[in-house]
Amino acid sequence: MAQNSTTNRQILLASRPVGAPTAQNFALAQPAIPVARAGQVLLRTVYLSLDPYMRGRMSDAASYAAPAALNEPMVGATVCRVAASQHPDYAEGDWVLAYTGWQDYALSDGTGLTKLDANLAHPSYALGVLGMPGFTAYMGLLDSGAPKAGETVVVAAATGAVGSVVGQIAKLKGCRVVGIAGSADKCRSAVEELGFDACIDHHSPDLAAQLEAACPQGIDVYFENVGGKVFDAVLPLLNTSARVPVCGLISQYNATALPDGPDRTPLLMRTLLSKRIHMQGFIIFDDYGHRYPEFVKDMGEWLTQGKIQFREDIVDSLENAPQAFIGLLEGKNFGKLVVRVAND
Amino acid sequence: MAQNSTTNRQILLASRPVGAPTAQNFALAQPAIPVARAGQVLLRTVYLSLDPYMRGRMSDAASYAAPAALNEPMVGATVCRVAASQHPDYAEGDWVLAYTGWQDYALSDGTGLTKLDANLAHPSYALGVLGMPGFTAYMGLLDSGAPKAGETVVVAAATGAVGSVVGQIAKLKGCRVVGIAGSADKCRSAVEELGFDACIDHHSPDLAAQLEAACPQGIDVYFENVGGKVFDAVLPLLNTSARVPVCGLISQYNATALPDGPDRTPLLMRTLLSKRIHMQGFIIFDDYGHRYPEFVKDMGEWLTQGKIQFREDIVDSLENAPQAFIGLLEGKNFGKLVVRVAND
Repeated sequence: MAQNSTTNRQILLASRPVGAPTAQNFALAQPAIPVARAGQVLLRTVYLSLDPYMRGRMSDAASYAAPAALNEPMVGATVCRVAASQHPDYAEGDWVLAYTGWQDYALSDGTGLTKLDANLAHPSYALGVLGMPGFTAYMGLLDSGAPKAGETVVVAAATGAVGSVVGQIAKLKGCRVVGIAGSADKCRSAVEELGFDACIDHHSPDLAAQLEAACPQGIDVYFENVGGKVFDAVLPLLNTSARVPVCGLISQYNATALPDGPDRTPLLMRTLLSKRIHMQGFIIFDDYGHRYPEFVKDMGEWLTQGKIQFREDIVDSLENAPQAFIGLLEGKNFGKLVVRVAND
Repeated sequence: MAQNSTTNRQILLASRPVGAPTAQNFALAQPAIPVARAGQVLLRTVYLSLDPYMRGRMSDAASYAAPAALNEPMVGATVCRVAASQHPDYAEGDWVLAYTGWQDYALSDGTGLTKLDANLAHPSYALGVLGMPGFTAYMGLLDSGAPKAGETVVVAAATGAVGSVVGQIAKLKGCRVVGIAGSADKCRSAVEELGFDACIDHHSPDLAAQLEAACPQGIDVYFENVGGKVFDAVLPLLNTSARVPVCGLISQYNATALPDGPDRTPLLMRTLLSKRIHMQGFIIFDDYGHRYPEFVKDMGEWLTQGKIQFREDIVDSLENAPQAFIGLLEGKNFGKLVVRVAND
């Protein structure tokens, strides 16, 4: 069923996954579309963002944000059009960035909405390069990573929404950029389309040796998106005074137990100490919300000037969101994963 | 044999330890005292500093500094008197801070020497609260740890040369300070003499529960000196935006293998990410050498005003240095460990 004007398709969180999410963790509901009252707008979802952090929201383990509620629509950022307005600041047809989750329609009193330019070439970019993932790449690299021209920057999930932008900004800053990605195709794209100096398939049995060969001067900034074996390959190559912004750990999100031993925590701590390394976990809007305007200005200019490329992986129809999200955690997407919930 | 004016007692590094150092890793040599030539001074050791970092120098594993050479005197900071001078800047009897190692006498052309005030009440403090350990505590806490009044600061090795100063500076800055130390006596001293709010014996079987009880508001700054089980107890109590200066890992220095599993690296990384934690390894003079003057000024004032207490654990005679150092790695010292090589 496509989006229509009578029922509100919703993908609910039906149960909390143990390990990798499955289709059974989601359920489709189809209540009636709600009606906007005075001071409210009715939003109609056009694009829904799918992002790795959502795996954390499906769990009720303590984290930096509250878990998504069971039997409610899954949470998520959306680009919507105003379908009906009883709010003085919004008119029917306006584009807005919202956080209305995995559903066709939602009411809002305006809180947390950002109006988008009516003439945007790519409204969905507000969920990607011009939104949270792009901002994450920008601040994590430039503030926490603090790369200097000539340094070597390594970024994992190199063709993803964040990694692809990290690498391109690092190139703009004069760095050698080495990506790590999940297929030969992705690696080719990182080098040929995004301009990385090298990119290594993390499925390679000799990942560590390939990474060492691609980083003859060691690693000065490692932008951490994945954890696991990629981090293991990076750790011995980190230079003195290296910086490690910790943005995500997608390889760990479905884990139900810690890996077998030995316990390598002391190895990590010893490396941090003897090489005087800075490691910083960050949550983009909590740490850097006040610096959003400078990101918007810089990134807008880079896009206009063609200095940053951005690839989207668009999946059609809300019903396909669960499978697309499950695939995201397995690295199946190629570019920023967005669900096109409706055609406009 | 005591220090004399004909032979130069030297404690050599005879072999590199595997695991904990033993007496067999050291050897005594007694060559003749060298003679100062034009441009040189002959230094006579009065105090020798023993510090945990020396365990790293005994090993030839790659680290931030070159290993000590076999069959040469062990390296180390000393407070010396000028025994003879052929150097225009130094006169017989001058006190200097040097790095002449585990021996009675050494020649110097002045490189790396720091002249000390002739009237110092405690010349050995140049190896402790007014020297490298004090500077380490000062910069690690104030710059990397960046404590704010009202926050909770936890420091391990709480009565050691660094930890005791960390905790007292944190108190001066208005923090709640919780120490962790290796005996009931040390804990009593941390609270009653140094003014910590609480101190926990790390031998307690319920270390984690005691630490949690002593930190009802969680931990905002953990000054890492030890690693191992103490870090394990700290990790779950770290607050959002906590800072972890990594200064030392004394519990790990004698380790010959990583601990058994599971591998808890992902747990550490997840905590860094979800709580947005800053962790920074630092090596004091490499990272902060340019800020030494401000330390000297502040610490000098605090000592003069009686705001900082400093306890030394003085061991007499150079021959006892190996056993004292072995004990240091086992936590047997109580205060800054210094060998009194001669009486003045």
